[in-house]
Amino acid sequence: MGVIVQKYGGTSVGDSGRIKNVARRVVETKRKGNQVVVVVSAMGGTTDKLLEMAKQITDTPSERESDMLVSTGEQISVALLAMAIHDLGEDAISLTGAQVGIMTDDIHTRARILEISPTKMQEELNKDKIVVVAGFQGINIKNDITTLGRGGSDTTAVALAAVLKADMCDIFTDVDGVYTADPRIVPNARKLREISHEEMLELASLGAKVLHSRSVEFANKYDVPLCVRSSFNNSEGTYIVKEKDIVEEPAVRGITTDVNEAKITVKHVPDQPGIAAKVFTKVAEYNINIDMIIQNFSEDGYTDISFTVARGDIPRITPLLDTLVSGAGAREYTIDKSIAKLSVVGIGMRSHSGVAAKMFGALAKAGINISTISTSEIKISCIIPEKDAKKAVQVLHSEFELDKE
Amino acid sequence: MGVIVQKYGGTSVGDSGRIKNVARRVVETKRKGNQVVVVVSAMGGTTDKLLEMAKQITDTPSERESDMLVSTGEQISVALLAMAIHDLGEDAISLTGAQVGIMTDDIHTRARILEISPTKMQEELNKDKIVVVAGFQGINIKNDITTLGRGGSDTTAVALAAVLKADMCDIFTDVDGVYTADPRIVPNARKLREISHEEMLELASLGAKVLHSRSVEFANKYDVPLCVRSSFNNSEGTYIVKEKDIVEEPAVRGITTDVNEAKITVKHVPDQPGIAAKVFTKVAEYNINIDMIIQNFSEDGYTDISFTVARGDIPRITPLLDTLVSGAGAREYTIDKSIAKLSVVGIGMRSHSGVAAKMFGALAKAGINISTISTSEIKISCIIPEKDAKKAVQVLHSEFELDKE
Repeated sequence: MGVIVQKYGGTSVGDSGRIKNVARRVVETKRKGNQVVVVVSAMGGTTDKLLEMAKQITDTPSERESDMLVSTGEQISVALLAMAIHDLGEDAISLTGAQVGIMTDDIHTRARILEISPTKMQEELNKDKIVVVAGFQGINIKNDITTLGRGGSDTTAVALAAVLKADMCDIFTDVDGVYTADPRIVPNARKLREISHEEMLELASLGAKVLHSRSVEFANKYDVPLCVRSSFNNSEGTYIVKEKDIVEEPAVRGITTDVNEAKITVKHVPDQPGIAAKVFTKVAEYNINIDMIIQNFSEDGYTDISFTVARGDIPRITPLLDTLVSGAGAREYTIDKSIAKLSVVGIGMRSHSGVAAKMFGALAKAGINISTISTSEIKISCIIPEKDAKKAVQVLHSEFELDKE
Repeated sequence: MGVIVQKYGGTSVGDSGRIKNVARRVVETKRKGNQVVVVVSAMGGTTDKLLEMAKQITDTPSERESDMLVSTGEQISVALLAMAIHDLGEDAISLTGAQVGIMTDDIHTRARILEISPTKMQEELNKDKIVVVAGFQGINIKNDITTLGRGGSDTTAVALAAVLKADMCDIFTDVDGVYTADPRIVPNARKLREISHEEMLELASLGAKVLHSRSVEFANKYDVPLCVRSSFNNSEGTYIVKEKDIVEEPAVRGITTDVNEAKITVKHVPDQPGIAAKVFTKVAEYNINIDMIIQNFSEDGYTDISFTVARGDIPRITPLLDTLVSGAGAREYTIDKSIAKLSVVGIGMRSHSGVAAKMFGALAKAGINISTISTSEIKISCIIPEKDAKKAVQVLHSEFELDKE
């Protein structure tokens, strides 16, 4: 007996059969005596199909209109899921982000949730209805439809769970939990029973696509009990819990690689105070996220600045780099797309020393070259050649004995 | 210089090429110095595809959820059209029915517009934007999405034109105007330069699919200058004008047939006061429209009641008829789907006598059998066998010399 928020991704509602399957799971949860709010993504492939239609119209679609367009994807899913639930004899009502009152800022295509009113949802729950909410979308103060960016439905689910003070937020997906590494790369990767928010956050931002990182932040901030599990079977998922509630603290919880970044090097920049700031302020103005930054030591009053960005941002950053090179007096820039970011994550690093030494030693022994390194309290990342990514994960998984409980 | 509302139907925005074509026409109108509001339907076939998806989920989709589902069709069109307009260098903003504030009653799938606020549209027009509005949809007082029923985008356009006090409401469609008869049936049918609201209303409700009849009612009530024209060429369309502004008043303006009705006869009903009322009250409760009604003369205290309904309503009316037959003490009912309703329309009938005689004489001479007859001040309709429908139109078109100016 409680309030349960469930989220189903695009694969889980990919066709009418799967929608009916989701309806069965939802109804089952309701019939156990719970109040249920379901968040759904667009049916698999729909968003891409809509964006393809936009592309046939123009190469530079307005972001406001893109949001207007792609938000129809979730609206279709919620209507169909509500119908499927009705068909099983339970009452349900579908709601768009606007109808719930999911207020966001006005950065179209990657908006952030500012506020959610629980009133409408609670009214409908109190009428004994299952509430089916369109994920990924909201409205800004001007009443324009906004979207939260890819993976935003996870954030919707956790945010709804937070305002409803839900007893559990289950993220149903096509994998059955969080693994020590991608099982397609490491066959003996182990499913984790639990993981801390901090670790999950690092893994999410490092390329593990299980959960959207904003959703983990929300869950941590608002104490939302969160679980990742499979929509196709009933196996136990992975619980994302407070660090203080974690029993085991191995040095390394998981390993991940991200092959979606590129490394940009601006060469021969005059080594004066404020030059780096100038570069990164400009980049930030374009809403481009910079990940790792390295400034090499200075030589003859000149230095090289390297940083990594998402490969998808390359077309947007290129004109900026052209201006920067001329404006900052740098010589040139290079873009290297054949890199991978390899990361090990674990809250145990706080108490275990020597993790970095062990990691770099194992990689060296395997003949894998490391360039940029970046660390946090619970994470070590380094840039390696993309071609070595899989091998590196396998080597480290075995080095840190992650296959063992 | 003025405010122009243009409406483009599903065929006119059927693919990206056609959307771009519509964008060009809209931009052209804007650049002549007008403020432009464009209403669009879903891309041709989209609504049917969405309903097909619903059908894969359930045979009895909730009407609220159906509206939630199909309203995405227009949302897709408006977003794409706004993008196409941007691409031509003009500013545009797309708005859903909810965003405009098109308030309707809560009869889902065939809602009626109650009120429209011009504020949002005027704000955007004053920012020199082209306003692109999703046709066919609105919201009820509960903030649920409603739809106006098939052809409802015409009504949206005229209603917007009314609240904006527009100088013209152009309905762009795949025919280039209103004809004296369907040109596919009568090759020498003539395009009308003008037609009165009353005549257009009769033609629309009689099966001429050029304009949705609610839209003509609105135009008449709120003095909206209305024109039907082709979205594929620049030929003059047909103006729908006040009766007092019509110069020519021929006895018959146009001829139409409707093969979408069925005739239901409830036989051997006790001929007591209130029985007919009982029958039709029941039918009205189910929101089924009854068209022609005939009660035969009474014999031995029993009578037959016949009426016509849309063929599509047959599945919904059948269980009702079963109850009625037992409840009202009637003997049985029959359903005849092989009928056509043949109608001649013209405000000139008010001053010309003998139209009915001429019509029935010509049909008799052609060996076409007439059953039910119904008349209004400016219309004569009769039921004939469906197989004779085309021939009947041709015979009357020639009899009333409609090919001549």
